[in-house]
Amino acid sequence: MTCNKAKNKLGKQTLAFLNKPVIASGGSIVGVKEGQGPLGKWFDMVLEEDTFGEKTWEKSESKMLKEAVKMAINRGGKNPKEIDAILTGDLLNQLMSSAFMARDMQIPFIGLYGACSTMAESLLMGSVLIDGGYASNIIAGASSHYCTAERQFRMPLEHGNQRPPSAQWTATAAGSILLSADEQQIEEQKPLIIDNRNSGPVTEKKICITHGTLGKIIDTGMKDSNQMGAAMAPAFVDTVLNHLEDTKRQLSDYDMILSGDLGHIGKQIAVDLLSDAGIPAKDLVNCYDDCGAMIYEKEQDTHAGGSGCGCSASVFTGYVYKRMKKGELNRVLLISTGALLSTISPGQGESIPGIAHAVCIETCKEGE
Amino acid sequence: MTCNKAKNKLGKQTLAFLNKPVIASGGSIVGVKEGQGPLGKWFDMVLEEDTFGEKTWEKSESKMLKEAVKMAINRGGKNPKEIDAILTGDLLNQLMSSAFMARDMQIPFIGLYGACSTMAESLLMGSVLIDGGYASNIIAGASSHYCTAERQFRMPLEHGNQRPPSAQWTATAAGSILLSADEQQIEEQKPLIIDNRNSGPVTEKKICITHGTLGKIIDTGMKDSNQMGAAMAPAFVDTVLNHLEDTKRQLSDYDMILSGDLGHIGKQIAVDLLSDAGIPAKDLVNCYDDCGAMIYEKEQDTHAGGSGCGCSASVFTGYVYKRMKKGELNRVLLISTGALLSTISPGQGESIPGIAHAVCIETCKEGE
Repeated sequence: MTCNKAKNKLGKQTLAFLNKPVIASGGSIVGVKEGQGPLGKWFDMVLEEDTFGEKTWEKSESKMLKEAVKMAINRGGKNPKEIDAILTGDLLNQLMSSAFMARDMQIPFIGLYGACSTMAESLLMGSVLIDGGYASNIIAGASSHYCTAERQFRMPLEHGNQRPPSAQWTATAAGSILLSADEQQIEEQKPLIIDNRNSGPVTEKKICITHGTLGKIIDTGMKDSNQMGAAMAPAFVDTVLNHLEDTKRQLSDYDMILSGDLGHIGKQIAVDLLSDAGIPAKDLVNCYDDCGAMIYEKEQDTHAGGSGCGCSASVFTGYVYKRMKKGELNRVLLISTGALLSTISPGQGESIPGIAHAVCIETCKEGE
Repeated sequence: MTCNKAKNKLGKQTLAFLNKPVIASGGSIVGVKEGQGPLGKWFDMVLEEDTFGEKTWEKSESKMLKEAVKMAINRGGKNPKEIDAILTGDLLNQLMSSAFMARDMQIPFIGLYGACSTMAESLLMGSVLIDGGYASNIIAGASSHYCTAERQFRMPLEHGNQRPPSAQWTATAAGSILLSADEQQIEEQKPLIIDNRNSGPVTEKKICITHGTLGKIIDTGMKDSNQMGAAMAPAFVDTVLNHLEDTKRQLSDYDMILSGDLGHIGKQIAVDLLSDAGIPAKDLVNCYDDCGAMIYEKEQDTHAGGSGCGCSASVFTGYVYKRMKKGELNRVLLISTGALLSTISPGQGESIPGIAHAVCIETCKEGE
């Protein structure tokens, strides 16, 4: 039996990206409701209506993802031929949004499925390709749409059925990041929507990905598919604790720890579990937040908050990454969380497997 | 604009694995019908009945994949804690087989969706993780089951509906490969079923993965979901030609070129397209075959042959890899092919996007 000798691996589950893949640019698109939420002004594009001019919801979602991908490529000053591969996923059966987006883009495609953990999964695997010297430019991304998810996983929208208070609202959103090995490449174009926090020209920071922590499935036996936050919170906590142990860091070493979409209930469970694991409460108050809790106002009637692959994809790409470029945040741990139930597994008596993948995103220091 | 500088990339779409990830072991399991086919004696396990003792077909498939994964880990002399990650996928909505397998294995999990291209996709991404020094041991694999695929994509089995002559038969099969950075590790245990071609002790060759070629989606406008081979053949040809161009090789440099599961009709289309592209007919006769055409006898009434992620996974793992270990084949190009239609995209008027990923598998020479 041999011990683990992989040179770019730390501890049990963490990969170290010593060549620091750069986030060269990003693109984010959200639906009407998400545009009306507290982060509305940060997104690059807010749809005027959620069909996006398409005849089916699935085509609307695929178009959102495609536009987010094109936005990231254009802003990074690249043309599609320079992109080595697209790594994306979505919630739809057989990754319909991603597959048709990739068909139209004519760029090599690796389809990923991690439910709502997909954004971190794609950033992680994309970073491996760049860091290892297998690619110069990679697109990572994810999408979701309220209207495709509701009819696939729950009820046709036409039913107008009631949702329990613990249910989360699948975000109509897509986010895409251009990862690049070229350290000189940074986003050149300004956001489409003027950010009113930006009072004048600022020097943008260079942002890179330094670590990724692969998640394993945690299933605590939850069977209520309207309690996704509770089903995913233990997987989130497991990945956070493994990341901290592998990197020998503390939560206070981060400016922000961001769970994918646990929502309000899952976020509170995560706080409780992290406190039980000995994480100081003040560290959690200072730096922990959840994309699903951030994307909607309480008054928007989404019950337990947002969910869907597009939630953490758009919140990271539209909001967090832009704050990092301004120098407001220097080290962020993004942990997208996924509930790997299928459309039929609950009917077969199965509980909900949760998973969470993490990427550590940092400001590159001068001279690095 | 910068040119592509990635050090481990050749040409447009091919990655070079200079550290040569080793195939340390494999595990293959097939259903009753596949066990009665021409390759039956090569598979490590043939089920006595296709439920595998489970109450639902989805659970049967997930159990097959789990047993194939455990087989590869055990034969490689590893325990599950030494495996850095599992990269698998299947045809089921939300990767049900893979997700529940990964839950039971308690190993970090990256879910992939590439329809029937999944085996090459997982070997390719797994090789990147090993070759780049991000992992020491990776499980790559895929599964499919006739009874899960029929009811998800076509009709409930109870209908007993007729299938057109161009339809392929989803293989009930799972295959799993242990990729390892440890060059001393080779499979120690013998196959469960005695291989009657093996007339005595032989020195097993060390087998490694040297290249991967990422596929892009080719969609020629085919809309008939009972003509999958025709829909996927152009993507297969595109990836083969890109691989040959990127590596500056010819088809005759390979002992075997193996398409995933084009079946009899798709195989003939591929031969025609490759001939049109200037590949000499004698090279095609000498080395080209198709997993979907190989797995069943014509008399087994599968019409156009086999398909499903498990088809190329089990044929490669159970048959081709074992022949390579014996030294009968020294350089094989496995190109798994996927049809990225969804369960609803044909109903929305969409054609079928095809994709094909390739991995080049070679005998490691002494001293390498």
